[in-house]
Amino acid sequence: MSRILATYRVQVRAAEIEAIAAALALEQSVETPRDVVRDPFVRDEILARVERIRPVSVDTHEVTLALAPITTGNDPAQLLNMLYGNSSLHAHVELVDVTLPQSLVEHFPGPRYGIEGLRRLTGAHGRPLTCAALKPQGLPVERLAELCYTFAKGGVDIIKDDHGLADQSYSPFDQRVRACQRAVERANRETGGRTMYAPSMVGRPEALYAQARLVKEEGVGAVLLAPALIGMPVFEELVSRHLDVPVLAHPAYAGAARVAPPVLLGTLYRLFGADAIIYPNFGGRFAYTPSTCRAIAEAARKPWQGVRPAMPVPAGGMTVERVPELIEFYGPDTMLLIGGSLLQAGEALLERTRAFVGQVAAQTSAAEVR
Amino acid sequence: MSRILATYRVQVRAAEIEAIAAALALEQSVETPRDVVRDPFVRDEILARVERIRPVSVDTHEVTLALAPITTGNDPAQLLNMLYGNSSLHAHVELVDVTLPQSLVEHFPGPRYGIEGLRRLTGAHGRPLTCAALKPQGLPVERLAELCYTFAKGGVDIIKDDHGLADQSYSPFDQRVRACQRAVERANRETGGRTMYAPSMVGRPEALYAQARLVKEEGVGAVLLAPALIGMPVFEELVSRHLDVPVLAHPAYAGAARVAPPVLLGTLYRLFGADAIIYPNFGGRFAYTPSTCRAIAEAARKPWQGVRPAMPVPAGGMTVERVPELIEFYGPDTMLLIGGSLLQAGEALLERTRAFVGQVAAQTSAAEVR
Repeated sequence: MSRILATYRVQVRAAEIEAIAAALALEQSVETPRDVVRDPFVRDEILARVERIRPVSVDTHEVTLALAPITTGNDPAQLLNMLYGNSSLHAHVELVDVTLPQSLVEHFPGPRYGIEGLRRLTGAHGRPLTCAALKPQGLPVERLAELCYTFAKGGVDIIKDDHGLADQSYSPFDQRVRACQRAVERANRETGGRTMYAPSMVGRPEALYAQARLVKEEGVGAVLLAPALIGMPVFEELVSRHLDVPVLAHPAYAGAARVAPPVLLGTLYRLFGADAIIYPNFGGRFAYTPSTCRAIAEAARKPWQGVRPAMPVPAGGMTVERVPELIEFYGPDTMLLIGGSLLQAGEALLERTRAFVGQVAAQTSAAEVR
Repeated sequence: MSRILATYRVQVRAAEIEAIAAALALEQSVETPRDVVRDPFVRDEILARVERIRPVSVDTHEVTLALAPITTGNDPAQLLNMLYGNSSLHAHVELVDVTLPQSLVEHFPGPRYGIEGLRRLTGAHGRPLTCAALKPQGLPVERLAELCYTFAKGGVDIIKDDHGLADQSYSPFDQRVRACQRAVERANRETGGRTMYAPSMVGRPEALYAQARLVKEEGVGAVLLAPALIGMPVFEELVSRHLDVPVLAHPAYAGAARVAPPVLLGTLYRLFGADAIIYPNFGGRFAYTPSTCRAIAEAARKPWQGVRPAMPVPAGGMTVERVPELIEFYGPDTMLLIGGSLLQAGEALLERTRAFVGQVAAQTSAAEVR
């Protein structure tokens, strides 16, 4: 039976690492002292094995465990549990890599559109996709719809709700989605464009199911979901059973420091069905390094056991001025998301949006000429 | 309008704290630069305010933000988003305290049984409750049911599934729950006791709903849920709408280092409906300090805006020998959970279980005499 390989970075010195690795294997499988494991099936098939121990520095080691796929019941919640349930409570243990057997991967949706599907739907080929954000929350529905209209006239590929927009009294989900979707459709008719609106779905499962039904009824083109907020198993279920459109994953509440961001945002969000993965880019409001960002993009896009590539979406304080640098860094299979910086243009929002869209197109043509 | 007070511990020196606090207020409310906020309603009602800045050490400050309750839409997922959505991605920002206005608290279930309800159902008064764990996973249903029977004969108040038990081929949820519930009922008939079985529910929402139906059909007395694994909003919805029995909250995947454990496990799990809250005790397999454990127990039990107290459940490598110390530390409003250490008794499981139960009873009577 092919096993799950889970790698943990453990803050511990060489003298203790063997014992810590053995304890980790017990904790992440049977959760009992070793001498309680008397049943041969449990010992041979269920117990995690220490596969490899690798020193990283004098007080850091990487431990790779081989976990039994049968323990996951092919369920996303239980997969998380087996990968990092109790060990997440150890401050010195970080989950840094996950390799899954093909037989397990096949139980999860992965991106149903991914990079190729997003390009097909938006008609954006050979260049990064562009994305803008509706905010701030607190604006009434008609103001948000106006912003939507302007962004769509400006030609951005995807307009997403700010992740702070929920089902609030000042812009209820159903009214907002109807108005914004219509505003985008009107702009598309006028421009001949194919801008998509991606509302933010958030709430208890029953609220999410109702939101998914409205999305379908209104012909909305995409949605935004924060898997860490709503719960990763809910995310996976929504993708598998309740949504027909591309899904942008937002990193809110991912608290990514305890699971390495490329694993959580890149690998797991992709496995559970994100078509595009938003994350805080370097040099913005957040502290991710260029190498972390590159690793997230790599995890989202790399060939992986037949799972479609997902679109990386660097974000968080990006500006139009940084477009050339971002394209240089990420290449064309990327979605560039600019939020507040566009809105700072105030009355000149349409011009600024067009500058953003034009910058991306020009930069990409220039690259082709070279 | 009364506001939510959220306190963050920020690793930053005095020279920068004013700017960082202002940025935090923008990030956790409007998520735009300040100059984008032109609408008077957004500025006055939605924008978070910096309420207080308090130095903790030379490079650490506590920032308290006043957040608008209206932004939460009275939804658990959106409440998490507003408390710690984007800021969870800042490694230097930790959420350490939350105070909610009464009008918001009333939208969430809180413990429906809590300490008093658990005592009423188990008939355990004036002493800590006792709890044992079914494990290791991988055992067939009949072996787990045998263990259940033995624990119940031994007189423990609650027998919980190990959180690793899910809906796996080697002990499917429905077969396991039926067999274990019947084993406990048989033992109760023989002893006249009131032991309750608490199966571990885990999975996608639709699986959880089905599991909740089975729990009801079989007359199961309690359940175990890991809010961080299944998603806190799913947890809250299950408690509010799908479960009639007491709920034990398990800390798996809580990665509690990024939200202070007393807030996450004590306050939020209690708000969303946990009747008993399991956490890693000091001196066991995990590294929580006595003061963290005391703070979790305090958050679970303290009088709080009409929300019932929840039972703290220190666990994680506890032993029968530590019972006196634990009772001394936590007092009687506690549930003592001993897992693997009981199972190490092997053939002598019934005797060891009786010793545990007897120790708790004796210790408490001794305290009454003094």
